[in-house]
Amino acid sequence: MSDHRYSALLTDLYELTMLAGYFEKGMHRQTAVFDLFFRHNPYHGGFAVFAGLQPALEYLSQLRFTAEDLAYLKKLDIFKPDFLDYLESFRFHGKVTAPAEGTVVFAREPLLTVEGAMAEVQLVETALLNIVNFQTLVATKAARIVSVARPGVVVEFGLRRAHGPDGGLSEARAAFIGGARSTSNTWAGQVFDIPIKGTHAHSWVMAFPDELSAFRAYADCFPDQCILLVDTYDTLASGVPNAITVAEELRAKGHEVKGIRLDSGDLAYLSKEARRMLDEAGFPDVKIVASSDLDEIVIQSIRNEGGCVDIYGVGTQLATCGGEGGGALGGVYKLVRFDHQPKLKVTSDISKATLPDRKRLLRAVFPDGEYGLDIICLEHETPEPGATVFDPINPARTKTIPPNVRFEEVRQVVMEKGRITQPPSSLDAMADRCAEQMQRLPNGTIRLTNPHIYKVAISRGLHDMRSRLMQEALENQPGDEKR
Amino acid sequence: MSDHRYSALLTDLYELTMLAGYFEKGMHRQTAVFDLFFRHNPYHGGFAVFAGLQPALEYLSQLRFTAEDLAYLKKLDIFKPDFLDYLESFRFHGKVTAPAEGTVVFAREPLLTVEGAMAEVQLVETALLNIVNFQTLVATKAARIVSVARPGVVVEFGLRRAHGPDGGLSEARAAFIGGARSTSNTWAGQVFDIPIKGTHAHSWVMAFPDELSAFRAYADCFPDQCILLVDTYDTLASGVPNAITVAEELRAKGHEVKGIRLDSGDLAYLSKEARRMLDEAGFPDVKIVASSDLDEIVIQSIRNEGGCVDIYGVGTQLATCGGEGGGALGGVYKLVRFDHQPKLKVTSDISKATLPDRKRLLRAVFPDGEYGLDIICLEHETPEPGATVFDPINPARTKTIPPNVRFEEVRQVVMEKGRITQPPSSLDAMADRCAEQMQRLPNGTIRLTNPHIYKVAISRGLHDMRSRLMQEALENQPGDEKR
Repeated sequence: MSDHRYSALLTDLYELTMLAGYFEKGMHRQTAVFDLFFRHNPYHGGFAVFAGLQPALEYLSQLRFTAEDLAYLKKLDIFKPDFLDYLESFRFHGKVTAPAEGTVVFAREPLLTVEGAMAEVQLVETALLNIVNFQTLVATKAARIVSVARPGVVVEFGLRRAHGPDGGLSEARAAFIGGARSTSNTWAGQVFDIPIKGTHAHSWVMAFPDELSAFRAYADCFPDQCILLVDTYDTLASGVPNAITVAEELRAKGHEVKGIRLDSGDLAYLSKEARRMLDEAGFPDVKIVASSDLDEIVIQSIRNEGGCVDIYGVGTQLATCGGEGGGALGGVYKLVRFDHQPKLKVTSDISKATLPDRKRLLRAVFPDGEYGLDIICLEHETPEPGATVFDPINPARTKTIPPNVRFEEVRQVVMEKGRITQPPSSLDAMADRCAEQMQRLPNGTIRLTNPHIYKVAISRGLHDMRSRLMQEALENQPGDEKR
Repeated sequence: MSDHRYSALLTDLYELTMLAGYFEKGMHRQTAVFDLFFRHNPYHGGFAVFAGLQPALEYLSQLRFTAEDLAYLKKLDIFKPDFLDYLESFRFHGKVTAPAEGTVVFAREPLLTVEGAMAEVQLVETALLNIVNFQTLVATKAARIVSVARPGVVVEFGLRRAHGPDGGLSEARAAFIGGARSTSNTWAGQVFDIPIKGTHAHSWVMAFPDELSAFRAYADCFPDQCILLVDTYDTLASGVPNAITVAEELRAKGHEVKGIRLDSGDLAYLSKEARRMLDEAGFPDVKIVASSDLDEIVIQSIRNEGGCVDIYGVGTQLATCGGEGGGALGGVYKLVRFDHQPKLKVTSDISKATLPDRKRLLRAVFPDGEYGLDIICLEHETPEPGATVFDPINPARTKTIPPNVRFEEVRQVVMEKGRITQPPSSLDAMADRCAEQMQRLPNGTIRLTNPHIYKVAISRGLHDMRSRLMQEALENQPGDEKR
């Protein structure tokens, strides 16, 4: 992605007013640590797939205010000249710790941890949330869809319903990480080297005197990439028979029709009938592609009813991350350490309390490779098998770390002093990571509804620190809110 | 917006394969007319606000394939050399008819009509849908929210939950057209000259020893733009009293605190209590800003309960166009005329049948300025008051055009031979148009749930043409689908 995509002004104004305030009060160079995390798994599901890191790091490493940006800020008449001078040489020199993209993650786990000078780590809040929230949400949606479609294959079709041109680009990228095998978005193919797919629309059929002529013309132009859309007039009475006629004609010329596409009607029923007709006509290898407002629920019901779909084209519901508990990932970016002191957002609702200080995120893995639980602990803590860990929301619920696990470090340092420290990873590697990790989750974790809740615990050290800080904060603050 | 935003590859691959097919068959220069429309008003509402035209026209006027684009397409090994040569000189020379942005529109009405050489008008389908679907969806959401917030003011806060950086930019633009008065998105402020707003986050408060010091520091830095976030610890016991203390101190120095912001809790209750406390302390002009997952439903309930909110900050629900019937506008782009013949997508479901041929969209206006009904008619038809018009889905339902109406042409030619024919309009003018047109709708049309259904009818000429084409198509096609 080229630099122009990320303006330094890609931020809420309040990041800049806070920066100006820290600058004026001489606090802008004090060190701060922020965690980016979400409080609930999206789609009321049991997991999420982390995505968006590479674009986030690109944003951080190219961050600077252009002369136009500074002229605009000056015109606002909010900021003082010495602050604008400071912004002119502003660069991000911070450190970032994060999982690799495609990693399976859970609610409350620190994803990005960003540390450095207060001014630098505060300014980037909005952009990091914008990038990571959306891509993680899409990758998770794709992983859910892929999990029910398998062994069927998922193609991302969402560009026309995506939220703007770049929304479609980010969507295609994240969907690929989550397991979609290709996209209809040609631009995404070019930028990310994702395989692209596509054939023709109803308008092609309507531009010819009849459906058979339209199919013949398409097969003539693309004898080796011929997928025919069969629902313009009547799928079973016209579309499939005409496709079979063309498949026979093409075979006589030494080519094979690759597939047919169903885009309306009862896809479970139509796919079974179409499969039967194709098989009986001697075309068992012609694939059936289905599209039309598909999501994980619809695909599951097609499969439950014995539908014969090989390839699912998923558009709107992937582009908009629709469905219960979808639409937005509620990622937040919270101060956990400032000026060498751990920090906590105090609240009477412990489910909204933050986890203070620099932390590690460990995954306990059983000998057979299955994931057991995740543990959030303090930076210098090393939990041992057999130790007691705590539910982050209800610390009265404890758990003993199983004796036979080993720990995997979920996150690595990915940026130091503003420079990316890891070699770039391919999207294929990210997609492979996602697929591999999903297989290692306990049974039921990827179930669509009422999933098994994978355990995420906090260590004794973190639990004790949080308790102490909450106690101190309550002693220093006025009484409870009335309601 | 600069040219780089719209790649010629911003398209589904099937547009390009169809183009290659039309080119190979010598059909690419035959003239075609497409309509862009949606079948259902978003959010189960009674109206939509059209937006996205200016960016769509910018896309069309700068459309060309770069050397890199052509190299990528060549590498795909799908397209023949003479087609790639043709793409090298590809430009959009077509004609576009559309409403002005901010115009109130309804389901089934042709929004964009795009006509020209088949290759040119087909290729642009995906990008036009991408741009117009999202911006129209956001503008409509904003208009719904503004309609219940009034006289309260709406600020757009959605960047961190928007679908990518440019998603946030498009969102801010469209939300302004729909009636949001400002945005937190600094980049959108720069690009579109939209007023921007913002103060500080919880992290500001947490970076100081206590809330009062944090408020004092902020007031000191921004004595004339001071809005204080009062819910970090305890809104009524700590936040509001501390804000009042700072307001008194600031007044002693000749400045006034501008507002406080509530970002959690029971906003109806807290806003009433905060208002009372501020008034009693002598600060009736301090505004109350509320945020925290607001949408039109929540704002309506705050108002119903007598909440005292002056400014509503709306983020996630505006950025993601959430809520029942939201998420995506199902805009489609259908062939209505090809090679000098009107075209129709035939289907047994008349609600999915398209409206053939070039059309006009007229709005019947009563003498007092209120809108009466919209009429879709053929290009050269001029319906008269007193004439019979037809429900597009159930043509047995007819209506007589009231005798005392005059007609307004809803759409204009906005592009001819690939050149924009109208002077650029300001976002302010678009927002004014939207506000003015919403006032002219019949009572109940903008109601959030179960709205009055504004009548959209088709003329006798269009009705007769559609009936004839459906009859012809049915005679030429095989029998009914079994189910």
